Amino acid sequence: MKVVERLEELRTERDRFQGVFGLVPTMGFLHEGHLSLVRRAKQSCDHVGVSIYVNPTQFSPEEDLSSYPRDLDRDLDLLQREGVNLVWTPKDEQLYPPGFSTWIDAGELTQKLEGAYRPTHFRGVTTIVAKLFLAFTPDIAVFGQKDAQQAVVIQRMVRDLNFPLEVVVAPIVREADGLAMSSRNVYLNPDERSAAVVLNRSLKQAEERYAGGERDADALRAVVLDILAEEPLAKTQYVSVAHPETLDELHGSISSALVSMAVYFGKTRLIDNVILG
Amino acid sequence: MKVVERLEELRTERDRFQGVFGLVPTMGFLHEGHLSLVRRAKQSCDHVGVSIYVNPTQFSPEEDLSSYPRDLDRDLDLLQREGVNLVWTPKDEQLYPPGFSTWIDAGELTQKLEGAYRPTHFRGVTTIVAKLFLAFTPDIAVFGQKDAQQAVVIQRMVRDLNFPLEVVVAPIVREADGLAMSSRNVYLNPDERSAAVVLNRSLKQAEERYAGGERDADALRAVVLDILAEEPLAKTQYVSVAHPETLDELHGSISSALVSMAVYFGKTRLIDNVILG
Repeated sequence: MKVVERLEELRTERDRFQGVFGLVPTMGFLHEGHLSLVRRAKQSCDHVGVSIYVNPTQFSPEEDLSSYPRDLDRDLDLLQREGVNLVWTPKDEQLYPPGFSTWIDAGELTQKLEGAYRPTHFRGVTTIVAKLFLAFTPDIAVFGQKDAQQAVVIQRMVRDLNFPLEVVVAPIVREADGLAMSSRNVYLNPDERSAAVVLNRSLKQAEERYAGGERDADALRAVVLDILAEEPLAKTQYVSVAHPETLDELHGSISSALVSMAVYFGKTRLIDNVILG
Repeated sequence: MKVVERLEELRTERDRFQGVFGLVPTMGFLHEGHLSLVRRAKQSCDHVGVSIYVNPTQFSPEEDLSSYPRDLDRDLDLLQREGVNLVWTPKDEQLYPPGFSTWIDAGELTQKLEGAYRPTHFRGVTTIVAKLFLAFTPDIAVFGQKDAQQAVVIQRMVRDLNFPLEVVVAPIVREADGLAMSSRNVYLNPDERSAAVVLNRSLKQAEERYAGGERDADALRAVVLDILAEEPLAKTQYVSVAHPETLDELHGSISSALVSMAVYFGKTRLIDNVILG
């Protein structure tokens, strides 16, 4: 496994790989969720590259950029064991040189759901992901369904700008008790950690109601909100039942939907989702 | 020479070319200026591709999109004679499908000079150029110095987003009397056509004054403005003496500068420029 820091080295190393190349972009502090993306990439690709970069431009000033968890040695060890071929660990100065001024904006999609609470988040995401795509020139890029809106936004960008690659979205990986894996779970104290299971429980309940024939978007939203409201440590920011592609909020009768949420436990903001139908 | 309309065909044909591939993006109605870009590309490349597409998103509603001159048969004939390998003539529906919403913005640079008068122009330019880059995946892309700010903006985009290609900027090609070649010159009536030579004459005068030791930005700007003012058919929109990379307007003593202008002759807006130093 080759680990490089400079873009020029990355391009040199990348050029050595013939065949289908897969990319898994990450912010490091890897867990089983990330490793599942690597394994998914390996299924479809001859070679797999991973980027480890905590991208400052997708954090707003009040968010957790400086405290975001990092453990590069452990990350590299995990990636080595997964048989990753190439890892890029760039520094800020290289990705955002003096005078950096070019941004990619995927429009209306980015102002809904997460974007309503994190207004500059997706501009940072699309810009860094485009840069990673242009640095690695992958044939396939794998993202997690955990960040459901991010997956939709990136698929839109790839289509709109004609990136010559395929986006694969891999399922959410959960802890034994159902909590979606996230690097931010380490912020939770033991009480919050136990309480956080309510996210998955509420989504399961929505799934069951949908399986039982419930097709009213507002009823499904209410099911989730009610379960979250029963957990005193959970402070719900939003629960959404939205169109899976346009992300428009749905009301009345639905066929399919993305049910998603953001919930605070103390200062820790967790997200989770499920697609119905 | 292969001429294709659909993106999928373009990718298939592009994949057949090994070696260094050059791209010359155009809006068609080709003249010697465009052909000089093709020749410049051929100097450095094994294969050359050209796009012919009048990009609607770089025109504002009051501009000349519908009347922009077109002559595809003649264009293809000219490109064939230059030994071009691959031509893409896409349709709007393919480049801007329903729901298109992703834009690239190169920031502050795009709000100066031309951008001050054409506020959405460069967003359209950077977005379509990025799409052309991702469609052709060229090693080298050639642009004309005629659109000086466009060249600066695209170089910034390429650097900021890590496009894996080199931008070459080729010199302005002029008619025998000095008028910079432009597809829009066909709009000029005979009187306007004669009068339009004043652009080059004013730039020549600035060059001479610079060669003679004049280093005061305001004095150089005044030289150009005075000469333009002597031509009754010329309605000057702006004359700028700016930093060649930041495009900041310069005052007082300079070392180098981009002297540029936009001038109306009737309804026809012409631009021209020279780099001093």
